Amino acid sequence: MTRGIELVGFDADDTLWHSEPYFQEAHAEFERIVGRYIDLADAGVHDRLLATERENITLFGYGAKGMTLSMIETSIALTAERISAADLHRIVALGKSILQHPVELLPGVREAVEAVAATHRVVLITKGDLFHQERKVAASGMAGLFQRIEIVSEKDAASYARLLREFAIAPGQFAMVGNSQKSDIAPVLALGGWGIHVPYPLVWALERAEIDPAHPRFASAANAAEVPAVLERWG
Amino acid sequence: MTRGIELVGFDADDTLWHSEPYFQEAHAEFERIVGRYIDLADAGVHDRLLATERENITLFGYGAKGMTLSMIETSIALTAERISAADLHRIVALGKSILQHPVELLPGVREAVEAVAATHRVVLITKGDLFHQERKVAASGMAGLFQRIEIVSEKDAASYARLLREFAIAPGQFAMVGNSQKSDIAPVLALGGWGIHVPYPLVWALERAEIDPAHPRFASAANAAEVPAVLERWG
Repeated sequence: MTRGIELVGFDADDTLWHSEPYFQEAHAEFERIVGRYIDLADAGVHDRLLATERENITLFGYGAKGMTLSMIETSIALTAERISAADLHRIVALGKSILQHPVELLPGVREAVEAVAATHRVVLITKGDLFHQERKVAASGMAGLFQRIEIVSEKDAASYARLLREFAIAPGQFAMVGNSQKSDIAPVLALGGWGIHVPYPLVWALERAEIDPAHPRFASAANAAEVPAVLERWG
Repeated sequence: MTRGIELVGFDADDTLWHSEPYFQEAHAEFERIVGRYIDLADAGVHDRLLATERENITLFGYGAKGMTLSMIETSIALTAERISAADLHRIVALGKSILQHPVELLPGVREAVEAVAATHRVVLITKGDLFHQERKVAASGMAGLFQRIEIVSEKDAASYARLLREFAIAPGQFAMVGNSQKSDIAPVLALGGWGIHVPYPLVWALERAEIDPAHPRFASAANAAEVPAVLERWG
């Protein structure tokens, strides 16, 4: 019943530009700070931080500010309140450094989005912190290529369904391009849309999922440059 | 050149429901915590926190998470890093309590929005933290009354102009209702739209501004119940 793919959504972080490495660097520095107080391996610091982040996401949502508050809470709990104010200030500074990191486009991204925009309407759909994501979109120099910039609190089927209603597009007319199978691909396939997975070397633990590679409306592209050809094949 | 007011925007915090009292309670508790280390009046705690918030808004944007990080930074600076991890944890808890506060509608708000919605398209336009604002809209039970919920990072003329383009509405066809002269009224008047100020007893220092009460497209309403009559008068 569809008249082909009309609208293509692109994820932003780790699809258009690097993001996860900055978060992982902050996590590593966090472990160095906490490691001055406790034995990292004994305390299971990595798992404790992840557990705090997972719990706090229901209150904070995604993004660097919530992550920073979760790091502060975790470090206080793990050190039994022994961590110094100076070290907690260093953790706040880590959060600020993420909010200020440079926006470095992935190879071939600009050309790929331009090629898709020549034949389809394209929108940018990202989750996380509204203010930070807007800053990155502006810094990327890519804003003008997209018909709309949509920053949502959660990328689930309900969010995509609302966006498709706003664009007056049936799910079968929509394809989503992104690095997260969980956020960018699975909910779109569930609605009846199309998904193009472009893997990024690092994936945050809370974004991991597995799509059946044989799914008829799913493709995996090695990089952004392959995306236009996938869309052309799908017609 | 307008065909009357067609679209009415309502602000959310302190226009539809109470918000600022929760922030002010958190500020008071923050001062009690810091007051155990230093003389509050000597240190100018209130002004120092405001200065940190003002500086950090360019990085954090608006909302409780950024405010909490600003409180942590300010308390560390004011106490010369003497504040304990336990007290810093209390400050994180203050931020969390704001994110969880109950959503209590102001008197007459539901009826006023319903009355306006019977004759106009109505949208909710708010700034701040995406995740928190969505939670409050859901908890308010008001979401169904609005054609769209717009959460923006800044309420300036550029943001309103973008929204009006998306709604395909000329500024003269748009009226904004809110408690902040700076965010809800001044930029809309500057674009050529209409503004209805509904004062709230408490105004955050960074939201203060003064509109000329004689402005031809400006009205002040004592409360939400008066809004439909103002719109009717304007036609």
